[in-house]
Amino acid sequence: MTRENPFAEHIGIEEVEVSPGTAEVKVQTKDYHTNILGYVHGGLIYSLADVAFELASNSHGVDAVGVTTSMQFHRAVKAGDTVMASATETHLGKTLATYHILVETNQQVVASFTGTVYRMSS
Amino acid sequence: MTRENPFAEHIGIEEVEVSPGTAEVKVQTKDYHTNILGYVHGGLIYSLADVAFELASNSHGVDAVGVTTSMQFHRAVKAGDTVMASATETHLGKTLATYHILVETNQQVVASFTGTVYRMSS
Amino acid sequence: MTRENPFAEHIGIEEVEVSPGTAEVKVQTKDYHTNILGYVHGGLIYSLADVAFELASNSHGVDAVGVTTSMQFHRAVKAGDTVMASATETHLGKTLATYHILVETNQQVVASFTGTVYRMSS
Amino acid sequence: MTRENPFAEHIGIEEVEVSPGTAEVKVQTKDYHTNILGYVHGGLIYSLADVAFELASNSHGVDAVGVTTSMQFHRAVKAGDTVMASATETHLGKTLATYHILVETNQQVVASFTGTVYRMSS
Repeated sequence: MTRENPFAEHIGIEEVEVSPGTAEVKVQTKDYHTNILGYVHGGLIYSLADVAFELASNSHGVDAVGVTTSMQFHRAVKAGDTVMASATETHLGKTLATYHILVETNQQVVASFTGTVYRMSS
Repeated sequence: MTRENPFAEHIGIEEVEVSPGTAEVKVQTKDYHTNILGYVHGGLIYSLADVAFELASNSHGVDAVGVTTSMQFHRAVKAGDTVMASATETHLGKTLATYHILVETNQQVVASFTGTVYRMSS
Repeated sequence: MTRENPFAEHIGIEEVEVSPGTAEVKVQTKDYHTNILGYVHGGLIYSLADVAFELASNSHGVDAVGVTTSMQFHRAVKAGDTVMASATETHLGKTLATYHILVETNQQVVASFTGTVYRMSS
Repeated sequence: MTRENPFAEHIGIEEVEVSPGTAEVKVQTKDYHTNILGYVHGGLIYSLADVAFELASNSHGVDAVGVTTSMQFHRAVKAGDTVMASATETHLGKTLATYHILVETNQQVVASFTGTVYRMSS
């Protein structure tokens, strides 16, 4: 991680690339990432998307905090799969901005996420 | 945790109470839960709500998987605070069910979450 | 309607009660409210919830505009049913506020809605 | 409208094109579409996106009903503007499918919408 991100590091999330308005991150899933049904936990999939959202929305030099997010889970993920999330900027306003994040494993979309931030210094 | 929940345990989430259609969980936040701005990470707050959602929706003896969730973040949380999440059932249908989760710290609502599951064995 | 609300009036929505932070509205559904499958259209159900959201969030004397909303549809509604929506304030901040709206017909929850506004004059 | 859609017609929504998994619709906004602040009502913008969602999700010959939707409003729309909404399919499963809808006026994104349907005959 370019900037210290303790929770992302604790759960194994790695930064792939960040540029103004976009970010890509990944996680190599392991047994400790699973839920009560034995699949990768929704909280990990969300956190991966949320880190892409955090890095993309904070890429303009203005502190941005998440206000609302929505997530759709399309397919279960098995421990052992590598999962990627990439964020794109749908709208960049003065005080609010919106990002869309696709979560993929093996080139297949497993989840999608939309998030809106409040830009604090604006 | 009554049922093994590796990801929840890895991030310090504890079960408080589960009964049919409801669940309450908590986390004692620590420095490793923080984000790039130094506050508790949205991924941890979401994961806490998501575990309450997972336990409440799987409390009827039918496997339930998350389909869509939406989350609103109202206040930043500081490392050191204890955060609680409690889930209630808004609608229980044959194949779909919806839960509303309130996330609180010091009796103050810090986030709210709504999630819909697909009930697999139904 | 206490304040002129052309779209709400065009689709038959009536104000029941508005007080600081809350609002209740209703619609007597008719054949012109239906969708391609013959049920009441999701757009009408959403609009009913959205009017409750609009009236509750603008009840404090500060102009408020919708930023994000999420909606869950639990049951189909038939033309002829009276549908009620009531909004409560989950969080009132200086620049952002969140409302939760329940939509009911015959005392049964048919849909739920969560919305966040940006408060313009704040 | 290729299929009778009473609510869509009542509020002036027109079908532009529907093909398997996609749909495009539009509305020429008028004074009767406005809200208490004088802008085009969020309920109309949502309904436009929802009709694109309805037509795209019902384009495969299987009845589909909306389960959850989320919407982000980026810019206010003025009465008189023509507003377009186009739906694309993010995920098509056996019982659930997800669509992403962009709402534009004058080539500018004014809102975005994500919706998940339950496919009834599947």
